Amino acid sequence: MNLDFLFYPESVAVIGASNKPGKIGNSIMRSVTMHFTGKVYPVNIKGEDIEVNGKVFKSYRSIRDIPDEVDVAVIAVPARFVPDVIDECGQKGVKAAVVISAGFKEAGNVELEEELVKRARKWGIRVVGPNCLGVTNIENGFDCNFNPPERQARPKFGGIAFMSQSGAFGAAILDWAARHEIGMSKFISLGNMADLDESDFMSYLKDDPKTGVITAYLEGVKDGRKFFQRAKETTVVKPVVILKAGRTEAGAKAAASHTGSLAGSYKIYEAAFEQTGVLSAKSMRQLFNYAKALTMQKPARGDRVAVVTNGGGAGVMMSDGLLEKGLRLAELSEETNEKFAKAVEEGKLPHHMSYRNPIDVIGDAPSKRYELAMRYALEDENVDALVVIALFQSPALDEGIVDVMERVQEYGKPIVFVAPGGDYPERMARRIEEKGVPVYETVGDGIDAIYALVKYGEWLRENGRL
Amino acid sequence: MNLDFLFYPESVAVIGASNKPGKIGNSIMRSVTMHFTGKVYPVNIKGEDIEVNGKVFKSYRSIRDIPDEVDVAVIAVPARFVPDVIDECGQKGVKAAVVISAGFKEAGNVELEEELVKRARKWGIRVVGPNCLGVTNIENGFDCNFNPPERQARPKFGGIAFMSQSGAFGAAILDWAARHEIGMSKFISLGNMADLDESDFMSYLKDDPKTGVITAYLEGVKDGRKFFQRAKETTVVKPVVILKAGRTEAGAKAAASHTGSLAGSYKIYEAAFEQTGVLSAKSMRQLFNYAKALTMQKPARGDRVAVVTNGGGAGVMMSDGLLEKGLRLAELSEETNEKFAKAVEEGKLPHHMSYRNPIDVIGDAPSKRYELAMRYALEDENVDALVVIALFQSPALDEGIVDVMERVQEYGKPIVFVAPGGDYPERMARRIEEKGVPVYETVGDGIDAIYALVKYGEWLRENGRL
Repeated sequence: MNLDFLFYPESVAVIGASNKPGKIGNSIMRSVTMHFTGKVYPVNIKGEDIEVNGKVFKSYRSIRDIPDEVDVAVIAVPARFVPDVIDECGQKGVKAAVVISAGFKEAGNVELEEELVKRARKWGIRVVGPNCLGVTNIENGFDCNFNPPERQARPKFGGIAFMSQSGAFGAAILDWAARHEIGMSKFISLGNMADLDESDFMSYLKDDPKTGVITAYLEGVKDGRKFFQRAKETTVVKPVVILKAGRTEAGAKAAASHTGSLAGSYKIYEAAFEQTGVLSAKSMRQLFNYAKALTMQKPARGDRVAVVTNGGGAGVMMSDGLLEKGLRLAELSEETNEKFAKAVEEGKLPHHMSYRNPIDVIGDAPSKRYELAMRYALEDENVDALVVIALFQSPALDEGIVDVMERVQEYGKPIVFVAPGGDYPERMARRIEEKGVPVYETVGDGIDAIYALVKYGEWLRENGRL
Repeated sequence: MNLDFLFYPESVAVIGASNKPGKIGNSIMRSVTMHFTGKVYPVNIKGEDIEVNGKVFKSYRSIRDIPDEVDVAVIAVPARFVPDVIDECGQKGVKAAVVISAGFKEAGNVELEEELVKRARKWGIRVVGPNCLGVTNIENGFDCNFNPPERQARPKFGGIAFMSQSGAFGAAILDWAARHEIGMSKFISLGNMADLDESDFMSYLKDDPKTGVITAYLEGVKDGRKFFQRAKETTVVKPVVILKAGRTEAGAKAAASHTGSLAGSYKIYEAAFEQTGVLSAKSMRQLFNYAKALTMQKPARGDRVAVVTNGGGAGVMMSDGLLEKGLRLAELSEETNEKFAKAVEEGKLPHHMSYRNPIDVIGDAPSKRYELAMRYALEDENVDALVVIALFQSPALDEGIVDVMERVQEYGKPIVFVAPGGDYPERMARRIEEKGVPVYETVGDGIDAIYALVKYGEWLRENGRL
């Protein structure tokens, strides 16, 4: 399933382009010409030239008039015209059509949608949508999303791909990811999935070298058997995290009126996710807690977690959270205990610290003390993963911690960092993330992160991949 | 239990004050002279004057030398000197001592702590701590916290009081609250609770007109029977939200080595919380999700929730979340359905919107359409509370929504607002919160908020207070 022709076009036509600010056909022109370096040809019935982002684009009355090849057509004309536009695209040799237009199946117009598919099949055109925000490839700036940047920021480039059956929610996610500096590779607004569906994109993203983790918001899968097969193939290659909505009766009813999805019994989905190694998230925050950890760190080889903290209370909360999620606090080996005891004796570590796991390096710990404790924990064979909690409110904790976090990754064990608080911890978080360790704002978020690394590691081990 | 003498002193002595930046006795001087308008007298054995925040404070060798009355003494001298310092405070007529110094019970020095209490009792001095960050009264700036402002911001003044058995976590909370613009009234770092304990402060805060909601991080209560009695008295007056740590075996073990708390069986705590109407939060984020809603909105008179959204997916997730938390989606009355049908017929609302609950005003909704839908929902007798979800990524949604949110509060039913995304939604959130409606970043957070309003309403009704 190679969809590079869709995500990496050299030339794009925007059919239904408009010169009137506020119109969808204008907003799409703004988005697609903002960062994209390929060629963009507006098409509109009046042939009016389009001025966006400080540039003027010559317009064509029909895609057939464009004196160049066109790889992808972005279509934003009234629904009833779309099948004919598809024919013109076919005549032009277009490979993919991104149909933004609404007014198909979701509005009761089932036949119109069938007609759209029939025409596309005839020409061998693959279709995204209809009734969607299209695709956004953060890497090359190919962006069909009609939400303007002043309302919806675009995230930086990174390893997380996101598919959404809800366009509006997808837009909120992009905006949210941008704000929280979460890097994304590709965004797909699935729309009605008349042709390409979540399973097709999953297969494509499996082989996409720019995508490290595949995430999705889904109300229902289009073809259960196909999804099951594709998910199984995908999760042994890279992690898949899905937020399935419509889990309750009320939610399923709402989903039926939203996307027409037969949400189905959530139990069936739960079982399918478990059997295919899909990680199931219950909320947007959890989805990204999982995804960020999985893009930045290796999966864990077991569920024994060590915790190093400069705050006892945070260590208690972390212990609770790990156990409540079914993980374990690592029991440190005799050897490790002896190392700690010796370091305390030699004055390298303070007398009143606790080196039972959670390892409490206490409130006056500088980064050097953290490093020693982390190394002892990571050297221990009984430890599969490490959570580091830093309450930066204590002025004793110096910025050397940033380099420490780079160094301690040499053990090859996954590490998650938790830094609760305000502006200062957030600045430190960004610097630590540059070193490759994901940082979370709350203990609860950090628990999600480590859970994902452990669970995905389990799945890979079960399948002989770790 | 009136502790105004502790939180509203006219004159304060800082015993162990230091002129050396980085020393705790210097940091406390910085904090206490930053915003506090009362008199501050440093005391140190060398009698060296203290220069902080651009001002010079004349120092005294003993509190007895201060030529003025002293209401509160903040003590930060080595533990072994504290009992004698307490005697001096007693001779001076001090009413309350905030003992920052560590090295008491938590370090195995049980007798020293008993001696401290004995001396304080003799003089009738009430003690906060030892081994704590002291108290912070955001209202008058009386702030004993030794974390410097560049590492730990102070929140703005507002209705949430917070007590913490963990100083470090308390500091992180203050920093976090500042960042998220959550207003707080008073912060109490409980420390070892040698004298004043969580129940005493709860009783004080119950009658404190500046506190709307009482929150706490606790590993264990000091006196179960006292707590039970005080909690029962308090929750009928204002909400109490507690994050109890040490819920699991591993957490309880960690708590024992942290604060020495016998965390006890969590089941017992759960039962006690339920019987006393205390809302139990599982995470820091949940604690503040609950607290923010409870300070800003009235409790709900029932569990029937209406949802108005411009995004179908968010409506589905909200439906799931409400049901998973044991709440209900309101079933709109026949009358309300007719109102909606009529408005659609008259073109005031769009044909393709869904006015089953969740009410989907769809992606192109301006604030006027939101207002109409909200009013129909709030006028319905079957609706006890309203959740409004706004995906501000859609440029159709105008800023008139801010004033709409002010107006629709006239029905007296609690309202919670959810605005997922990045910078633009956050700016709108702050403006909507100025109108009195709490705004949340994710659907999950909004679910917490409405849950708290419904649960607290139930408790008040059970007790004939609503």
